[in-house]
Amino acid sequence: MPDIFREVDNCVTAPLGFRAGVTACGIKSDTTIKDLAILASDVPCVAAGTFTTSSTRAAPVFVCQERLKSGRAQAVIVNSGNANCATGELGMQNAYRMTESVAKRFHLNEELVLCSSTGIIGRQLPIEKVEAGVAAIELSTDQGNAFSEAILTTDTRPKRIALEFQIEGHLIRLGGVTKGAGMIYPNMATMLSYLTTDAAIEHDWMKRELQAAVADSFNMIAMDGDMSTNDTCILFANGLAGNTPLNADHPDGGTFREALRRVTQYLAREMARDGEGATKLMTVHVQGAYDEADAIKAARAITLSPLWQCALAGGDPNWGRIVAALGASGCRLDQSNYDIFIGDVQILKQGLAAQYNQNDARAAMAGNEVSIAVDLHLGEGKATAWGCDLTHGYIDENTLYTR
Amino acid sequence: MPDIFREVDNCVTAPLGFRAGVTACGIKSDTTIKDLAILASDVPCVAAGTFTTSSTRAAPVFVCQERLKSGRAQAVIVNSGNANCATGELGMQNAYRMTESVAKRFHLNEELVLCSSTGIIGRQLPIEKVEAGVAAIELSTDQGNAFSEAILTTDTRPKRIALEFQIEGHLIRLGGVTKGAGMIYPNMATMLSYLTTDAAIEHDWMKRELQAAVADSFNMIAMDGDMSTNDTCILFANGLAGNTPLNADHPDGGTFREALRRVTQYLAREMARDGEGATKLMTVHVQGAYDEADAIKAARAITLSPLWQCALAGGDPNWGRIVAALGASGCRLDQSNYDIFIGDVQILKQGLAAQYNQNDARAAMAGNEVSIAVDLHLGEGKATAWGCDLTHGYIDENTLYTR
Repeated sequence: MPDIFREVDNCVTAPLGFRAGVTACGIKSDTTIKDLAILASDVPCVAAGTFTTSSTRAAPVFVCQERLKSGRAQAVIVNSGNANCATGELGMQNAYRMTESVAKRFHLNEELVLCSSTGIIGRQLPIEKVEAGVAAIELSTDQGNAFSEAILTTDTRPKRIALEFQIEGHLIRLGGVTKGAGMIYPNMATMLSYLTTDAAIEHDWMKRELQAAVADSFNMIAMDGDMSTNDTCILFANGLAGNTPLNADHPDGGTFREALRRVTQYLAREMARDGEGATKLMTVHVQGAYDEADAIKAARAITLSPLWQCALAGGDPNWGRIVAALGASGCRLDQSNYDIFIGDVQILKQGLAAQYNQNDARAAMAGNEVSIAVDLHLGEGKATAWGCDLTHGYIDENTLYTR
Repeated sequence: MPDIFREVDNCVTAPLGFRAGVTACGIKSDTTIKDLAILASDVPCVAAGTFTTSSTRAAPVFVCQERLKSGRAQAVIVNSGNANCATGELGMQNAYRMTESVAKRFHLNEELVLCSSTGIIGRQLPIEKVEAGVAAIELSTDQGNAFSEAILTTDTRPKRIALEFQIEGHLIRLGGVTKGAGMIYPNMATMLSYLTTDAAIEHDWMKRELQAAVADSFNMIAMDGDMSTNDTCILFANGLAGNTPLNADHPDGGTFREALRRVTQYLAREMARDGEGATKLMTVHVQGAYDEADAIKAARAITLSPLWQCALAGGDPNWGRIVAALGASGCRLDQSNYDIFIGDVQILKQGLAAQYNQNDARAAMAGNEVSIAVDLHLGEGKATAWGCDLTHGYIDENTLYTR
């Protein structure tokens, strides 16, 4: 069967009617680095978002949550270098001033402008620099890739994708970008992700689909969606493709759902692969769990074990650490009947060391992508999680961040 | 007020009637290292224990849990180098054989002999080596320190203490040892702790007091009691001091409780200080939490944040990471009214950066002991947790463990 999804360029500006622009406004100490970016649609969009549930969430998260209650938005402004978090009333004012400057510059309804910030916590945003930066930004339909780069912090590379597919004979595009490199642990870093599409979609269905897609992608990497102060994922749908609006009854809803899974899972995997100091991407598949919740617990526990992450870095098949992580995960487990595989090598059979060749096990951990599979033989629950290894690079990155 | 507790030598063999002995039986690849140890009382003891709740717990944990139902025990045999975990039916048989060999050698009731194992998961215990080792072990009242050394794995130093105090004019001793160096994260390593006393104590009260003391000590370091496959803490009380048995109505119960707190908190702090690769001990005090459960969540979240642990290693007062950890902890929090101190330096006041001198903040993080205090101004909940920094040493220790 030919793939009905075709990868295209320009990520978030691939869909019709989306423009982006970036500038270096001087928030970051290296003033040549682009640290301010705007993404806007030519027309108002149906929009939905998922956000951190942290009790110390940042000012821009409040602004997005408030404005997305309407189910509509048209633009988002993003700065890197400063998280605008733990900044109190002045931080809220500055978040609103960010959106106000965009609304004035591009003649938008301010209520349709969202904002995000990522970077150091606890410093006030240099709002005059942001406003001067907005004045300098020009938007165009070929700046999606530049947008994907300006939102980065400790990432080593941008994470972006766009797919093209058809619904009712209309060509539809779905683009996405994400940033976030502190993947090693849930409370590490800010994840920001923006998704755009020219499909017409009804708000309620889109919101549910976005939540489901995020649950199976960003929330399954070793960075918990509810753990950072600024985590944000927003989907904008401007309807310019001209299809009948997608909803639960639309015969092609499944096509859009599949595109959304592919885009979000691709971005999630690339985030894990680009984790701070990471040299290996790990993919953990759990099946046979008592239920899906157990499968999620088990899969995430393995990606989150720093001991196993260290073993992964060393290519050491020290699978006792997988056993310990599983035992501690809270998932139901029959000690005499569960299996573990590293790559194709079965290392645990019915709870006991399997007869495997140690060289095969090392070989399965040698590449830059390692897969772990667990079968709990208890039920139908399954889940996939992604993570990375833990190396000196992570320590180096985080020991002297604010200096 | 003079301190009623006096520190004495010999840790677990300081109390009357306790003997220990050790040998190198060859479980560890370096066959000169002592890897087998026995601790025994001359007479049967009232005994209680707390254990991992992991669903992949090790064979010796099952044996201890089963035998401690009687509330009595007289000896424990401990090996390092092999965890006897994920070893199935044969692992259970080997755990029983360990206790059987001790019972035969020292003419004890086998039902009163406990066992523990720590080391690599998933390999069968070389039981013949253990049995030969038991035959070679002699017990004596001055081998408490040797016992504390033979149970170590990646620890850099033993953790041991004994206190002497009076109850009803009787001299009482309470000794303790612990091992465990993978302190950085809850599911890391095995903690084994053995406590001995010559006080007479009623079982039910002692069991409750032990659980309460463990909750305020070992469970408050950055290693969760319920997360490892082998975690064990056992208190033996042989009554040889001759006091009226302690219970809830005994006027001197509080004296024993205080001694138990001091011993367990000392051992817990020393475990955190000796965490793999650790260069700094961190102590986190939380007060003003909505309730005690919230205070525990908040304090532990800070000790468990790898980002903050890295900042601690670098002496970098990057307190945004404390804010993020607090926000993610699940404790209730008013973003406009909480305070954070590093040492004596207030760095956050009513949720906003305080006016502090950056050099003072760096100085507060420069030593090998760093204290963090958080006041949430919401209620009476308070808690103290201990942890350590995250360094290259941790990565080095764990990258190639099984090779």
